Amino acid sequence: MSTATVDLFPGGTLNQTALGENVNKILQMTENTNNALDVFFILVSGYLVFLMQTGFAMLTAGSVRTKNTKNVLLKNVLDACVGLVAYYLFGYSFAYGPANNAFLGHSNWALSDDKQEFHVFFFQWTFAATAATIVSGSVAERTSFYAYLGYAFFLSGFVYPVVSHWLWGGGWLSTLFSVGALDFAGDAIVHMVGGFAGLAGAVIVGPRIGRFDADGRVVPMPGHSATLATLGTFVLWFGWYGFNPGSTLGISFASPDANFPATAARAAVTTTIAAATGGVTTLIVIKLRDHIFDLITILNGILAGLVAITGSCPWVEPYAAVIIGAVGACVYMAAAMLLLALKIDDPLEAFPIHGATGMWGAIAVGFFARSELLAISGYGNNRGWEGVLYGGGGRILAANLIMIMAVIGWTLGLIVPLFCLLHFAGQLRIPREMELEGNDISKHGGAAYPEDALVVEQMSAQKTLDNMAMDESPKRPDDTGDVAV
Amino acid sequence: MSTATVDLFPGGTLNQTALGENVNKILQMTENTNNALDVFFILVSGYLVFLMQTGFAMLTAGSVRTKNTKNVLLKNVLDACVGLVAYYLFGYSFAYGPANNAFLGHSNWALSDDKQEFHVFFFQWTFAATAATIVSGSVAERTSFYAYLGYAFFLSGFVYPVVSHWLWGGGWLSTLFSVGALDFAGDAIVHMVGGFAGLAGAVIVGPRIGRFDADGRVVPMPGHSATLATLGTFVLWFGWYGFNPGSTLGISFASPDANFPATAARAAVTTTIAAATGGVTTLIVIKLRDHIFDLITILNGILAGLVAITGSCPWVEPYAAVIIGAVGACVYMAAAMLLLALKIDDPLEAFPIHGATGMWGAIAVGFFARSELLAISGYGNNRGWEGVLYGGGGRILAANLIMIMAVIGWTLGLIVPLFCLLHFAGQLRIPREMELEGNDISKHGGAAYPEDALVVEQMSAQKTLDNMAMDESPKRPDDTGDVAV
Amino acid sequence: MSTATVDLFPGGTLNQTALGENVNKILQMTENTNNALDVFFILVSGYLVFLMQTGFAMLTAGSVRTKNTKNVLLKNVLDACVGLVAYYLFGYSFAYGPANNAFLGHSNWALSDDKQEFHVFFFQWTFAATAATIVSGSVAERTSFYAYLGYAFFLSGFVYPVVSHWLWGGGWLSTLFSVGALDFAGDAIVHMVGGFAGLAGAVIVGPRIGRFDADGRVVPMPGHSATLATLGTFVLWFGWYGFNPGSTLGISFASPDANFPATAARAAVTTTIAAATGGVTTLIVIKLRDHIFDLITILNGILAGLVAITGSCPWVEPYAAVIIGAVGACVYMAAAMLLLALKIDDPLEAFPIHGATGMWGAIAVGFFARSELLAISGYGNNRGWEGVLYGGGGRILAANLIMIMAVIGWTLGLIVPLFCLLHFAGQLRIPREMELEGNDISKHGGAAYPEDALVVEQMSAQKTLDNMAMDESPKRPDDTGDVAV
Repeated sequence: MSTATVDLFPGGTLNQTALGENVNKILQMTENTNNALDVFFILVSGYLVFLMQTGFAMLTAGSVRTKNTKNVLLKNVLDACVGLVAYYLFGYSFAYGPANNAFLGHSNWALSDDKQEFHVFFFQWTFAATAATIVSGSVAERTSFYAYLGYAFFLSGFVYPVVSHWLWGGGWLSTLFSVGALDFAGDAIVHMVGGFAGLAGAVIVGPRIGRFDADGRVVPMPGHSATLATLGTFVLWFGWYGFNPGSTLGISFASPDANFPATAARAAVTTTIAAATGGVTTLIVIKLRDHIFDLITILNGILAGLVAITGSCPWVEPYAAVIIGAVGACVYMAAAMLLLALKIDDPLEAFPIHGATGMWGAIAVGFFARSELLAISGYGNNRGWEGVLYGGGGRILAANLIMIMAVIGWTLGLIVPLFCLLHFAGQLRIPREMELEGNDISKHGGAAYPEDALVVEQMSAQKTLDNMAMDESPKRPDDTGDVAV
Repeated sequence: MSTATVDLFPGGTLNQTALGENVNKILQMTENTNNALDVFFILVSGYLVFLMQTGFAMLTAGSVRTKNTKNVLLKNVLDACVGLVAYYLFGYSFAYGPANNAFLGHSNWALSDDKQEFHVFFFQWTFAATAATIVSGSVAERTSFYAYLGYAFFLSGFVYPVVSHWLWGGGWLSTLFSVGALDFAGDAIVHMVGGFAGLAGAVIVGPRIGRFDADGRVVPMPGHSATLATLGTFVLWFGWYGFNPGSTLGISFASPDANFPATAARAAVTTTIAAATGGVTTLIVIKLRDHIFDLITILNGILAGLVAITGSCPWVEPYAAVIIGAVGACVYMAAAMLLLALKIDDPLEAFPIHGATGMWGAIAVGFFARSELLAISGYGNNRGWEGVLYGGGGRILAANLIMIMAVIGWTLGLIVPLFCLLHFAGQLRIPREMELEGNDISKHGGAAYPEDALVVEQMSAQKTLDNMAMDESPKRPDDTGDVAV
Repeated sequence: MSTATVDLFPGGTLNQTALGENVNKILQMTENTNNALDVFFILVSGYLVFLMQTGFAMLTAGSVRTKNTKNVLLKNVLDACVGLVAYYLFGYSFAYGPANNAFLGHSNWALSDDKQEFHVFFFQWTFAATAATIVSGSVAERTSFYAYLGYAFFLSGFVYPVVSHWLWGGGWLSTLFSVGALDFAGDAIVHMVGGFAGLAGAVIVGPRIGRFDADGRVVPMPGHSATLATLGTFVLWFGWYGFNPGSTLGISFASPDANFPATAARAAVTTTIAAATGGVTTLIVIKLRDHIFDLITILNGILAGLVAITGSCPWVEPYAAVIIGAVGACVYMAAAMLLLALKIDDPLEAFPIHGATGMWGAIAVGFFARSELLAISGYGNNRGWEGVLYGGGGRILAANLIMIMAVIGWTLGLIVPLFCLLHFAGQLRIPREMELEGNDISKHGGAAYPEDALVVEQMSAQKTLDNMAMDESPKRPDDTGDVAV
């Protein structure tokens, strides 16, 4: 470090030129420092969001059967890789390519512009990867690898980027009713996109063989490691501190009215509260209903709490986070029951957690957001707008309901045709024998663990095959006849 | 970014008003930047401390038998959740509620005050969660779930907050002998609270069935995954960089005398040194004693090194960290042997690691702390006070010994009655059959892994049951007769 | 916070003294803030690099057989511990001890100087630990524990520190051809040192029993957990954001020409791109060659992409990162095939990933580095020097080729004699029976998991023993006759 002090009073009188130069120099230094601080904040937040890939990978691996472990791990690994390629080549351009366009951006392909803010690209990519990876849970254990690669590329490169442009890239959702829809870290923009794409996948691919018995009752298919599921959930919770507080998109003060450190800190606290109350709510409800302390459902309740607060985290009071998290856990549990009643098999409950609870989170903004907190978070243009519960009327709520409908329409409108196309081309689902044997042995060169780890599942698969041989006539709903890898 | 430079010399002469305004603006900007930097530092440190929950979960899961995996995972998950509820509702008020009270704070219930420093709440909560989670290891595999929920709530919401108020909330320990007790990141305040509560639990719950044979000899009960235990230890070590350097509570300069960056950096280095020497010491001692390279004990030696340095990390020289870590590992090993000699079954060795070694760490401050380092860490009021080894006399040591006794008295005084109450109400320990079968099948809806993972343990449990049938007369010390879930 | 504004115009006229004092105070504050920001950045980056130890531990554990799990975990744990002791005592002095010496530093032993920059020590230690841990993968499953402790100490304390002094400590490589060799985060300095030391170890220790059959064909020896391998790879990728962007060694602006935030952000983006293209390249090549989606090879392809970009990350364009990552994955695959053709058994493929690909990464700097990006990264003295592809001639390439040769010569020149010495002293390799039974039972007090986890491997080991009994005459290449633990 150089000596900072300068002699502004040589010979006892003020050297006005030196003074002026130093003041200007200091002004520049201070701005540079703030910029450095913000870039650092965004990078660290992005690292944490990237780590959520690890969380999803462990959660998914733990929640499927041994025989498909490598398969789901590889899918999670490739989310990050294939998604990056798509997002780098054109996804980021659709989302944030400089363009006064309400619908999509269309420049800076493959980061080709001269000026770049690489930390922004990095941070935004981690969100795209999150949206894509949510889907893999819904279609796990029976979807073909090519189908998976296809939708991961399409979702990361087009479906999600366009939605994110609408709100965060200056598109039409950001100006709706002059206030704009409000979705801080992406309940509709990220979680609903992933959750509804997953729902479409789960419905079109059909349930796993044996998930519903001949009478339509649910057959439990526990994952092969509750430890991995717990590890994954904890890592996701940890990563959420990048997702939510990080969405402040800076930590230095932006203006005399804004207070970014307070915004980020409040986001961290409400995120924690909602996660905890989500977990506690699930603990109580499941204990009352099923008389067990159900680890996996409680983990999902925590995730539901996290999803629920994602849209509103820096704009609500702590007590509101309690309500948002607890209701979020109930929405998750109700949606999960509904899916099973409809014979939809979503192995990771990705739609209940991300789709349904994400919708609740986007609605909750309309009720609980406070004008004063919107202002200090840098949403100064929303000054004066309050949530319904603070007498602000329904403008935020209305804007967010339109956002919700737009997101559902756009996501399903693109993903349903894609999955149907793959289905009719016979490329969506793996053959029945492969599903019974498991993906790992047939496509991935062997099991994820020493061979005896598969014994129990192989016995169970053999029993299913024997039953099938005896009972060939009635077509099951999950017998799609697809032949794919 | 706006252009920073302003024209302070329009027409060649100094615009004095513009100058004054700019200087004032810059002063405000610089303070804002420092505040943003400190909030960011505290948030990131808090994230890392939160991740220690993951570390504890994996360490505990790996250190218990397969049949109780879900049980201990769920307990660790709920530490974070139930503890948060208690800390949010009143724990934080007892600890830091603004109040000129030497004993406890009593305002800002449920974060209800108008002014909040949410990053402080977040950071402090992660410490409360750490204290609570330590206990779960000591009572693992045989304690009822309700008993667990009760003490987790009580410890997070009252026992720990009051102790933390005494030292860190401006209470009576902070002014003792004018110098105040010194415990930088919480050897007495956090680790001893958890460790001694765990000890009380382990004694009152009694040992696991079969932990000591009919002749009182120790029967090894290895955990089901050394990999998980290693993962957990590494994650804890990583998280400790939030715990120790993060306890600087800021990173910008606080005053011309203080140097927070140097304080945090020194804490990171001494933490690393103590962890490493703790590990190496254990490696050597166990190899000489048992002629094996004992992974689990070495992992615990590392944790003991980390605990040992927690109280003094920014105030000691690197060579002192070597000694503190090495002695800490020896204290841990001695305490572990003592517990077994006393037939106390602490499955995770939480008391030896956190309680006994935490006490050593609090004592070590009194010997190794350096005045100059106290000053730059912001403890300027301790200027002139040195540890015993630097000729400072015993004032710090005496204050810390009083702190140690106060913490032990307070913790045992509250936790022993709680556990005794639960014991006499028959709510402390699970029934013998449930313990033999394992918690997971009886209370959590099934094992954490595919069913064949339990084969070896089930054979062993059956043997124990057969032996019991043959040998019903003598009451074992671990046969408490409690009936609980 | 104090009130920031001061009255510079008491009575309406400028108080010149107050003004001058405030300007000087502000200059000092701004420098202090920048210093705090940089220390924070380096600490956080160091934490992430430290977490790579966890990644290596999980990757290595997952990639070996069940019977050696504890053994490799312990080796990874001790990398951090034993390496820290060596680096603290003298390694850091050899690397960065203040000394105008082109070959090695030689002061500040055991951090004994009065002035310390502890954050620098911490960050640099994490790199030394990374270099050391790479080796353990190459010699896994058959090397004696003492041999391991010896080379870990030697590598962390001397081999690596001297090399790092050459380039980063102001040694002869930093001034080569006036431009200096260029290796941003250590392709040659870190990864090649680890990779080539590993190669020497793998060759001298010899292949694991049964790795090549009687006809010299490769026998697959899959690791016992693809889940752990995936977890490890994700954690390594996460930690790489400390390794690469962190090597900016600061985040505040260093000078009007430098732009450290942009440097770090670019490093994060190119690191991500190279990792992803490494993974995608491997996916495609292996699918075409072997007709499977090979998880483990794809994970290694990601790591190869990360290694490949390490030397050049902030100095190249995104498109170049695509090429560097893709070629890196090919270099890795080719080197892995070459090793097997040469009957060299490197269980973790540490040489192909770190040694061979590290060399490619160091070469790539010479082709893709851009003068303008060198300048803003603080390498202002390289202004005007471009990579070959930008018409800069071969000066960077030549300097880097000399660096590569120097690193190989130095590493092999020290490590080969060490391993040979251990070999001839009978201390390098464990006895055949111990290798067949596994390290865990014979040296570490039991298996890492419940005993039935070893069944399959024990049956396979018995078969090998039976075959040996029938076929004692011909000496196998892996039958070294060493007797060690």
